[in-house]
Amino acid sequence: MSIQAPKDMERERQSASFSIEALSYFWMGGKEKYIQRQAAYDYIKYDPELVVQPPRNILDFTKEEWREFTMGQIYRLVQLKEELKDNQGLFKEIVEASFNYSESLCMRNGVHETLFRSVVEMMGNNYQRTYWGKLLNDYKVIGCFAMTELGHSSALRGIETTATFDIETDEFVINSPTITSTKWWIGLAGQTATHTAVLAQTIIHGKNVGANWFIVPLRDSVSGEQFSNIRVGDIGTKVGHQGTDNGWIQFHKARVSRKNMMSKWARIDRHGTYQPAPNPAVMYATLIPERLGLVDVSTTLISQALTIAVRYGVVRRQGSKNEQIMDYQSHYAKLIPAISFMYMVKNSLSTIYQQFGILTASGKIEQKLYLDHMGDMHCMSASLKGLSGSLSASILEVCRRCCGGHTYSAYNALGHLTADWNVMTVGGGDDTVLLQQASTYLLHRLNQKIKYNAYPEFKYESSTSYFTYAEELLAAKTWHVKEVDDCLKDLSLIQEALHVILAKRLFSIQQALENGATHNDVLLDANRVAELHCAAFLYSDNARRFSAINNSSLDTSVAIIMRQMTVLWGLYVLRTYGDQGFLEGYISPQQLKDIEKAYLKLCKVLRKDVVGLTDAFGLPDFVLKAPIARYDGNIYQSYFDTILQAPNNTGVPPYHGKYIRPLTEKFSQIPLEKTRNKTQ
Amino acid sequence: MSIQAPKDMERERQSASFSIEALSYFWMGGKEKYIQRQAAYDYIKYDPELVVQPPRNILDFTKEEWREFTMGQIYRLVQLKEELKDNQGLFKEIVEASFNYSESLCMRNGVHETLFRSVVEMMGNNYQRTYWGKLLNDYKVIGCFAMTELGHSSALRGIETTATFDIETDEFVINSPTITSTKWWIGLAGQTATHTAVLAQTIIHGKNVGANWFIVPLRDSVSGEQFSNIRVGDIGTKVGHQGTDNGWIQFHKARVSRKNMMSKWARIDRHGTYQPAPNPAVMYATLIPERLGLVDVSTTLISQALTIAVRYGVVRRQGSKNEQIMDYQSHYAKLIPAISFMYMVKNSLSTIYQQFGILTASGKIEQKLYLDHMGDMHCMSASLKGLSGSLSASILEVCRRCCGGHTYSAYNALGHLTADWNVMTVGGGDDTVLLQQASTYLLHRLNQKIKYNAYPEFKYESSTSYFTYAEELLAAKTWHVKEVDDCLKDLSLIQEALHVILAKRLFSIQQALENGATHNDVLLDANRVAELHCAAFLYSDNARRFSAINNSSLDTSVAIIMRQMTVLWGLYVLRTYGDQGFLEGYISPQQLKDIEKAYLKLCKVLRKDVVGLTDAFGLPDFVLKAPIARYDGNIYQSYFDTILQAPNNTGVPPYHGKYIRPLTEKFSQIPLEKTRNKTQ
Repeated sequence: MSIQAPKDMERERQSASFSIEALSYFWMGGKEKYIQRQAAYDYIKYDPELVVQPPRNILDFTKEEWREFTMGQIYRLVQLKEELKDNQGLFKEIVEASFNYSESLCMRNGVHETLFRSVVEMMGNNYQRTYWGKLLNDYKVIGCFAMTELGHSSALRGIETTATFDIETDEFVINSPTITSTKWWIGLAGQTATHTAVLAQTIIHGKNVGANWFIVPLRDSVSGEQFSNIRVGDIGTKVGHQGTDNGWIQFHKARVSRKNMMSKWARIDRHGTYQPAPNPAVMYATLIPERLGLVDVSTTLISQALTIAVRYGVVRRQGSKNEQIMDYQSHYAKLIPAISFMYMVKNSLSTIYQQFGILTASGKIEQKLYLDHMGDMHCMSASLKGLSGSLSASILEVCRRCCGGHTYSAYNALGHLTADWNVMTVGGGDDTVLLQQASTYLLHRLNQKIKYNAYPEFKYESSTSYFTYAEELLAAKTWHVKEVDDCLKDLSLIQEALHVILAKRLFSIQQALENGATHNDVLLDANRVAELHCAAFLYSDNARRFSAINNSSLDTSVAIIMRQMTVLWGLYVLRTYGDQGFLEGYISPQQLKDIEKAYLKLCKVLRKDVVGLTDAFGLPDFVLKAPIARYDGNIYQSYFDTILQAPNNTGVPPYHGKYIRPLTEKFSQIPLEKTRNKTQ
Repeated sequence: MSIQAPKDMERERQSASFSIEALSYFWMGGKEKYIQRQAAYDYIKYDPELVVQPPRNILDFTKEEWREFTMGQIYRLVQLKEELKDNQGLFKEIVEASFNYSESLCMRNGVHETLFRSVVEMMGNNYQRTYWGKLLNDYKVIGCFAMTELGHSSALRGIETTATFDIETDEFVINSPTITSTKWWIGLAGQTATHTAVLAQTIIHGKNVGANWFIVPLRDSVSGEQFSNIRVGDIGTKVGHQGTDNGWIQFHKARVSRKNMMSKWARIDRHGTYQPAPNPAVMYATLIPERLGLVDVSTTLISQALTIAVRYGVVRRQGSKNEQIMDYQSHYAKLIPAISFMYMVKNSLSTIYQQFGILTASGKIEQKLYLDHMGDMHCMSASLKGLSGSLSASILEVCRRCCGGHTYSAYNALGHLTADWNVMTVGGGDDTVLLQQASTYLLHRLNQKIKYNAYPEFKYESSTSYFTYAEELLAAKTWHVKEVDDCLKDLSLIQEALHVILAKRLFSIQQALENGATHNDVLLDANRVAELHCAAFLYSDNARRFSAINNSSLDTSVAIIMRQMTVLWGLYVLRTYGDQGFLEGYISPQQLKDIEKAYLKLCKVLRKDVVGLTDAFGLPDFVLKAPIARYDGNIYQSYFDTILQAPNNTGVPPYHGKYIRPLTEKFSQIPLEKTRNKTQ
């Protein structure tokens, strides 16, 4: 079996129906970028400050080792930025490659580089952007993002930290009045940050004028000691992300200059005259890129998990005919749709980022444009995070089970991956709350169309543009597809079905509300519709890209497989949310059976492509860290060798004399055994 | 908020519609047992050898600390067995209480006490049972259970380890011929076991006569050194169960006496004459109690997770009206059905254990009776493990999300719990494979009834007895319930629906197979039916117990809530597997809508009972280990104090001078900040 495995792996690569190389370029966003990324992987692979070198195994690190190693990686990246100043393209790829190697690094670095930066860039006035921007670029200031509190996360309007204006000294006094107001989960607050951006209730002349962002120094830049009016600490051991020093902060009337209030939107002058933001929601605008970033990171992690499960699945053999376990329907029909989800999200994220770029003009937000479309952008990003959260959780569970017991070993990385990933559903906005907000927006939109017929035009493509045809959608009686197999030829058939189901389900909810149900009574239903809205958006966006094979810019084999991925995704969505269509009488039992049939058939067709589809994610073995997912298929020896390198793998344990020997020494070994099997 | 929380908790207790005390007794199996268990918790709570004492926190332990502490617990339990020899009732409860405190202990102890013991008791002849039984009782021998191999787990018939009979020396030579034959995951092999039971292919006179169990010594009883023909080691860091020393074993022609072959079923004499077992399946009979045991343990872990999520959910407040988050439909309608599953499984496990007891006569298996009904027992235990696996995984995910970010802290125990639990789906038989086996049995049974009408009588209640009415079930056109709400009055309505759906789905699968589909083509479908079979069995078994309220032996309030739990479970099953019903045209869209409505309504009714239902699990705070789930509701201070006790919580990290200061010392602090916020 150990000799068979590499042959199996090789044969799987041969069987792909497309050029794996071309698909790899596509996944990475172009040949040039792909080559640069591989160069970056080669660059970091043997750098002991970026990648842990054998025989040490990062998957065996203690929390303390993680904390130190991750800060060392950041330090090394700061050095490399200078060393590679003539090759910033390679440097950028090295950063990304290092993030793929360590999600803790990605998060710890991201708090300073993305979260803290976004407060400066999106909330600061011109002076603040220049002043703090330079300091943070040079890492002279290391910043964190103190938003959530021990007692408040999703309900940000309830935060308790106060910033009280002291007109005499022209300062704000930052204070944590209760234990629940302790800033909590703050990445980099634990051990690293010199400064923090703080969201606090602003009290001026005794009156709460709303939340604003303040920059507050936490620790001395030389000694690292915390300031006396600040109490700050590390949150300790977490489920994952041991390399990120999440911390807590309490402010004991700490004072900062009035100029430390971020003043792009709201302003305060020397006399305490306060000009509020045009819309309080802009204070949370940084959360949209954060949310999209989390979905992006999530895709990276899940694609690693899928690569592990797929590679193990094709070399593991089991059953009465010693089949590759990947040949079981329970394997391939769960993994391949999950892979299609990766491609859907990756492609559509670029659409959404593009839209977000239009709205924010790369950080220089134009107020009117932004405020007009923030709702739609919020709905898109919120429902995507919600769908990605629940689906990714199931995919991780599928991957885990597809590897049998072997991912219960820490050395096959999946446990670590999952532990890191778990923060995605609760950090950056709780998924349940986000879906609820998205569904509220959808109801509002449908209502606008149906009730008032006052559907405003969009300057950019809205995710809800299908409501333009709401009346037609609601009037549809049954899904008028002749054969479900036609969906493979005409991609609009599934799109139509999904939009009809969406409109009908939303309308049903709307009616229930009109008949006296509370929003809470329809919460689960509404959240499910928000997920479906996003799933349908992914389908439409990809169908738009791939419905025509003769797409000039794409390798033909890539275009074909992307089209198949899109159809598979569409069938998956129909199958998963099919009950929603059935509830409305729009989809018949026979159609549901046919959808299932078409779905399973397409999965079976794609079985041969499974290794190619995940190879295209382009993840080297040292990034995957899982011997059972070795590229060359030689998994068993490599796995066993990894175990042998683990600390304290063999020998008598230190507590033998204390706990084991007192029990067992009373037993006289049977002579035969004693003589034949000598102790070493 | 921190003052409100304890009041909220108290009010929740007041609102329960039943006597929490009476339900606690019921859950524990009687008042006497309940009191004994609480006494056991009190006994161990301050015992530093059984329970880690503050300020140390077991959730911060390294792998090495876990390994040692867990063996120390076992040693302490062996001492207590002697100390409490006049109060074995209390001792037994202390063991159970300690297992609830540490799943690693439960597993590590269970390998010796259950797995190794079951080989001796179920596979040994009279002499072997007496000889090894005494040694293992006294812990003079510590045994492990070497079944799975690196390359073989579910497909046990493919195991490669050999036991070759050497007629000259009257010995067996145990050998690991390949790397994939390395015994893998073997609990206690890592550091503890002196002996192992080994499943090996038996070679006699050059011929493989099938698998048998052999007892092989591994380590010297005094020195703890491994024997020279054995190579054994620890498997290292795992996702969970760091206290269990799972290991690997390679045999290099290790020799044992012929008498070390377990000989209840198969026998070999001095001349190498081999008498095989009546049915090779008996070699794996120990797996049924192991499997049931895992479901039992799983229930313990999931009930802990639910208690954590429920208690946090009633004291956490959020949203525009500062509601208890438990009041959101997305909270209570996910948690309460999960709680009903706990009660269903707990009740039905006792039914199954009773059945298993009949078959095995407490270890002294009667061959004919056992072989006749092993198939049904296998189907029952396999489908239960499969259903419990997938449902428990979702419940854990629900619990995790219901706690927002706070279970991402290791100190709120849920991450640890989940990591320990994860082994349940892949250990003791892979759930997917088990469901496949169960569905094969179900198809076989249905076929017997339909095709041959030769359905054998059962001496005990079979889980498939509903097939007796297979023809009627198949003839049913639509679910003839008038109002879905009637299901709350007449418990047979749901039972009938479930049995009809089961029969129809199985028949559809059977027809697909007759029309040329392979078993693999219908695998997902068939596994889903096997899950539904088990879900229906749980419903029927509980409906039988609780359909009449006037159950003399039960407190009336307990009988009423158990009846509600049963109905809720039934509605949950109908809702979850409803698609199976509408695929067959048996359930209409309107019925499906009404099922959802009745389900949500009942969840809402039971909202007030949520704390009482989980309080009844009777788990003390030190067992739960989660400050956010404190019994008294005072969660925030307790959580913060726990963080403060964690090692390295505050102060300058040791790597500050190496990685942080070189970056930040270039920054001159703004004078105002420097003067006002002094360093400590």
